[in-house]
Amino acid sequence: MPLKAKPVRASRTQIADLMFPADANSRGTVFGGVVLKMVDKAASVCAYRHAGGACVTVAMERIEFRVPIYVGEFVVMESQINFVGSTSMEIGVEVYAENLETGKRRHTNSCFVTMVSVNKAGSPKKVPGLLLETPEEKSRCREALLRRQQRLAR
Amino acid sequence: MPLKAKPVRASRTQIADLMFPADANSRGTVFGGVVLKMVDKAASVCAYRHAGGACVTVAMERIEFRVPIYVGEFVVMESQINFVGSTSMEIGVEVYAENLETGKRRHTNSCFVTMVSVNKAGSPKKVPGLLLETPEEKSRCREALLRRQQRLAR
Amino acid sequence: MPLKAKPVRASRTQIADLMFPADANSRGTVFGGVVLKMVDKAASVCAYRHAGGACVTVAMERIEFRVPIYVGEFVVMESQINFVGSTSMEIGVEVYAENLETGKRRHTNSCFVTMVSVNKAGSPKKVPGLLLETPEEKSRCREALLRRQQRLAR
Amino acid sequence: MPLKAKPVRASRTQIADLMFPADANSRGTVFGGVVLKMVDKAASVCAYRHAGGACVTVAMERIEFRVPIYVGEFVVMESQINFVGSTSMEIGVEVYAENLETGKRRHTNSCFVTMVSVNKAGSPKKVPGLLLETPEEKSRCREALLRRQQRLAR
Amino acid sequence: MPLKAKPVRASRTQIADLMFPADANSRGTVFGGVVLKMVDKAASVCAYRHAGGACVTVAMERIEFRVPIYVGEFVVMESQINFVGSTSMEIGVEVYAENLETGKRRHTNSCFVTMVSVNKAGSPKKVPGLLLETPEEKSRCREALLRRQQRLAR
Amino acid sequence: MPLKAKPVRASRTQIADLMFPADANSRGTVFGGVVLKMVDKAASVCAYRHAGGACVTVAMERIEFRVPIYVGEFVVMESQINFVGSTSMEIGVEVYAENLETGKRRHTNSCFVTMVSVNKAGSPKKVPGLLLETPEEKSRCREALLRRQQRLAR
Repeated sequence: MPLKAKPVRASRTQIADLMFPADANSRGTVFGGVVLKMVDKAASVCAYRHAGGACVTVAMERIEFRVPIYVGEFVVMESQINFVGSTSMEIGVEVYAENLETGKRRHTNSCFVTMVSVNKAGSPKKVPGLLLETPEEKSRCREALLRRQQRLAR
Repeated sequence: MPLKAKPVRASRTQIADLMFPADANSRGTVFGGVVLKMVDKAASVCAYRHAGGACVTVAMERIEFRVPIYVGEFVVMESQINFVGSTSMEIGVEVYAENLETGKRRHTNSCFVTMVSVNKAGSPKKVPGLLLETPEEKSRCREALLRRQQRLAR
Repeated sequence: MPLKAKPVRASRTQIADLMFPADANSRGTVFGGVVLKMVDKAASVCAYRHAGGACVTVAMERIEFRVPIYVGEFVVMESQINFVGSTSMEIGVEVYAENLETGKRRHTNSCFVTMVSVNKAGSPKKVPGLLLETPEEKSRCREALLRRQQRLAR
Repeated sequence: MPLKAKPVRASRTQIADLMFPADANSRGTVFGGVVLKMVDKAASVCAYRHAGGACVTVAMERIEFRVPIYVGEFVVMESQINFVGSTSMEIGVEVYAENLETGKRRHTNSCFVTMVSVNKAGSPKKVPGLLLETPEEKSRCREALLRRQQRLAR
Repeated sequence: MPLKAKPVRASRTQIADLMFPADANSRGTVFGGVVLKMVDKAASVCAYRHAGGACVTVAMERIEFRVPIYVGEFVVMESQINFVGSTSMEIGVEVYAENLETGKRRHTNSCFVTMVSVNKAGSPKKVPGLLLETPEEKSRCREALLRRQQRLAR
Repeated sequence: MPLKAKPVRASRTQIADLMFPADANSRGTVFGGVVLKMVDKAASVCAYRHAGGACVTVAMERIEFRVPIYVGEFVVMESQINFVGSTSMEIGVEVYAENLETGKRRHTNSCFVTMVSVNKAGSPKKVPGLLLETPEEKSRCREALLRRQQRLAR
């Protein structure tokens, strides 16, 4: 019997944290590695919620760091499932940094993470199907499928 | 000239994090101190957003820990301004813990934090007024005022 | 058979730490949340010592942050049991910050934490009675009782 | 006057660390985000050495996590410059995990990081040319160029 | 004009902390490096207090780890000045670990740290003389002198 | 049947890390305790590799801190077995700090750590013999033996 499909909104996740001096170099710029660790957490929670249990990171697509993030800024990550395979999921993570003095919020990164649902023994486990409810969700799913086909083609 | 008042929703904040083994005792229960540190961050970001600059914690009201939080759970904190004085703000923080396997989310704590807006020299600085738009916001403001009067009365 | 009562001095605890840059914002002021995490530890050790085993934080009373603490300062917390119920204890924590260059030591916070002794299964467990030996200990106990009655009255 | 070119070996870097319980989930598997933070450090040191000054992360290519890393394992990262542009560098990072009981060492990840050399003001700064001395270095450079062309083509 | 001498008791310091899972290996034993980091802090605060300003670690004598310390134990370090030279001080640090369930406290390590008082530029700075008030303080000073002579002899 | 002896090179280890603001005091100098924690890790991995299993730190010889290490520097530790007893090993750790802007690398510390191989129950366990292959390894072994005899003589 197949698992009952779940809508994208049921697992949509927001992770947020205030950047501390310990997260930065001496010029006050937050290290890329700190952002990547948060991206992995944001994707994990989203995948856990959809799969209803433990998931492991299988791949992270190319991520660009065009805009620096500074100490004292508030970093918000929004993650959602774009696509589900039989045991894997592609999660999109959007990263925003807000300057708390000016209130200006910048979109700093986009990232796609592939995670796999696992059982206690660590073997892959079936995940519920994904209900696409909005045009944006459908478009994100098509793009994820395209990325997947391009990867398999290479 | 007075600062332009801002609505409650303009500074409403969500902080969230996945609980790691490093946050817990050997029985897997997250330490109260870890939760309190997150509460302080959630209140800080909310106050910064309303004041448009640096704020310091002045007091935290009685907080109860009736429900344990476990390693592997996803902790979400929602903070909003309840009341503003001339340089101070009372921020309400609601804490939720979500078991990512069952999807069950529990309300674990409520907390009220008073913060003061400060200038570069650390002296108190005027904050914008607060626009109360919903009945719930008005009721939260009345309760904050009551707490304040009771404190002054003691 | 009742547990043998223990004097206040048997569980009196001192926790101390040097404040590092990682504990502060960019102006060098230590975050309230860092102090609260230490308060929780200071109360825990004191409660553990009196109960002779694991304890969990049940509540923390209103705490005020009137005096900032700076990076490079030495923070000392002194905790002692004020009052014991059948399974709970009220612990008082006094916080001091010492400027190591001038040798000036300031009293920065007072805080009352309620903890409950628990067995392996996490259920409340009887705690030993408290022997009050000095007038100060008796006065702290009366005040704790008063706080308790006021709470129950509300 | 152009900067004097440097050989690949002059900036080759090794970063290594023992995985602690704080780096893992409750099943003892190290989080992908912890690995990514180390990859960013390994690439940074390598880029700093070649550029002779501060560098910022501009992009990280797709990275796969096919092999789990466990608490207690020794993680070694080897990074080297594959290709230099006028102000940017592509750094390859190879990740190995060693089980200290069996002595077995596994290659767990490969990753390509693009970094840019920056001056005090944060603007891009010229980097020295790269001397390719071995067939392997030449082949890595060709592959980096290919990745770059494919990116520009998309 | 010489600096006014200070008694040993004026700078005697106690540092204490509860051992967390993040401080240990997977068998629950606290790493030696965690203890050494605390020893350095305990000696620093003591030296700062005597010198009335910044001090740097110059040497740490042989330290033995004969008794393991476990997660959940309360580690207390007591430091005091044994001997002062013109700009340097020898600080003795005694380490104790307390099992909070049994109340048993073990002496786990003794350590001698040499620190030098420094000015803003980092150059050595005169320290106040040391008033020895008890037979134990005099005996500790004689032993420190002996260690010093043996070191110079080698 | 004796364990098969292993050469020094089989367990030679390199640990390296970039110094972050969180590792330093407010003048940007890395704390001695941070270096000592890394030394313990470098020695542990080396001992684990030789013994083929868990080891505990038994003693660390006198260590000198004559040269400060700064935030932003790259710290490299090289560890190797100098001498093996029946269940113990002496590991030598050499510490280097590299200024990534100038490329200058300084030798900052030398340290000798004694570790013992332990079984699951924590009791000492035989370690393989040590094959000395180079004149330098033989000389290091002679010096370790000398240190041992001097310790036993005291």
